[in-house]
Amino acid sequence: MRIRGKQKKRQRFREMQGEFVQKPQEYKGHWNEKYFKRSAPLHIEIGTGRGQFLATMASLHPEINYVGIEKFPEVIIRAHEKKVAQNASNEALVCFDATNILEIFGESEVDRIYLNFSDPWPKKKHADQRLTSRVFLAKYRQILKPGGEIHFKTDNRQLFEFSLNTFAEMDWKLRNVTLDLHNSGFEGNVMTEYEAKFAEQGLPIYRLEALRR
Amino acid sequence: MRIRGKQKKRQRFREMQGEFVQKPQEYKGHWNEKYFKRSAPLHIEIGTGRGQFLATMASLHPEINYVGIEKFPEVIIRAHEKKVAQNASNEALVCFDATNILEIFGESEVDRIYLNFSDPWPKKKHADQRLTSRVFLAKYRQILKPGGEIHFKTDNRQLFEFSLNTFAEMDWKLRNVTLDLHNSGFEGNVMTEYEAKFAEQGLPIYRLEALRR
Repeated sequence: MRIRGKQKKRQRFREMQGEFVQKPQEYKGHWNEKYFKRSAPLHIEIGTGRGQFLATMASLHPEINYVGIEKFPEVIIRAHEKKVAQNASNEALVCFDATNILEIFGESEVDRIYLNFSDPWPKKKHADQRLTSRVFLAKYRQILKPGGEIHFKTDNRQLFEFSLNTFAEMDWKLRNVTLDLHNSGFEGNVMTEYEAKFAEQGLPIYRLEALRR
Repeated sequence: MRIRGKQKKRQRFREMQGEFVQKPQEYKGHWNEKYFKRSAPLHIEIGTGRGQFLATMASLHPEINYVGIEKFPEVIIRAHEKKVAQNASNEALVCFDATNILEIFGESEVDRIYLNFSDPWPKKKHADQRLTSRVFLAKYRQILKPGGEIHFKTDNRQLFEFSLNTFAEMDWKLRNVTLDLHNSGFEGNVMTEYEAKFAEQGLPIYRLEALRR
């Protein structure tokens, strides 16, 4: 992602630290009780970016607890602004590298994972860093409940092809696969900032759901 | 498929009848012993069309027994010419409607099924007629050995999307999914007549393998 004014935004992030979950490791296995202080399905988004998707979802589904995870401080400050604008008390934001996701969620704690327009890491030597690599799928399997779902969308054909194969190899059950989301009749799609721009150009968005067996 | 000079070709088919398998029902469960008179893996193609793919495969893989099934007499006469040109004694041609495929193959008789550029039947009301509909997948499951494979390719995005979903629903194991076959690094692809024309236009070919569990 291209980020303008990085230094200034980092400074801003330091000033805002209190708005983000400081030690997410302390909530491992207990997000609902300790953080949200209520029992509800737990949905997380990995790579929340500027937070449009998560804030919209949190506002549309007050009955769900949402955790957004974003690696880059310069970006997550925008997600916080959207959370505030939507007054979303059912949304938590964590600045954290998803590589270590097992440190912050317990076994079978999560009901659903959203992956939206993840970095395609096009070089083969970086394949394990793709958020749908077998390395990551093994981690998701641990934190998801049996029958828990991954909802994944991307504009990147190569990443989608790669993901179809990793999900199949790791024996996830695929569902609602579409090769052109915006012309598929799929209802209830909430767009990310990136998706809206991309869709304007008429290029296809790929989407799938994968269920943990 | 657009067919020129239909009447003439039908006449030709009647004259050539002896070249095709007359009563394929008689070989059900016994293609290798009774027809090919040798033990070998049995691969079939449904919708053989003008037969370029099957004749090339038969010539490249003399160790495999191939059966090509094609509904239209006007088309299969061309497949016969190719079989003769390749001198392919390991290839049988059957003019038959695959809807009734259970009449001509026994349980677990087949090792592999090829579906190449099948009719997309774009209208929803015709969905069951698509060769990758759940109706057909249930039939293929019967005639394939456990671990037997379907190799499917098409230029039709909607048909491919539909097929990804039916295979997933019916719990087939997907493998080697590609959304752009000719740029995928896949080796050993044998093109159909249709595919060669299509590829010249630079349009993507979709391909997958599905394994019977």
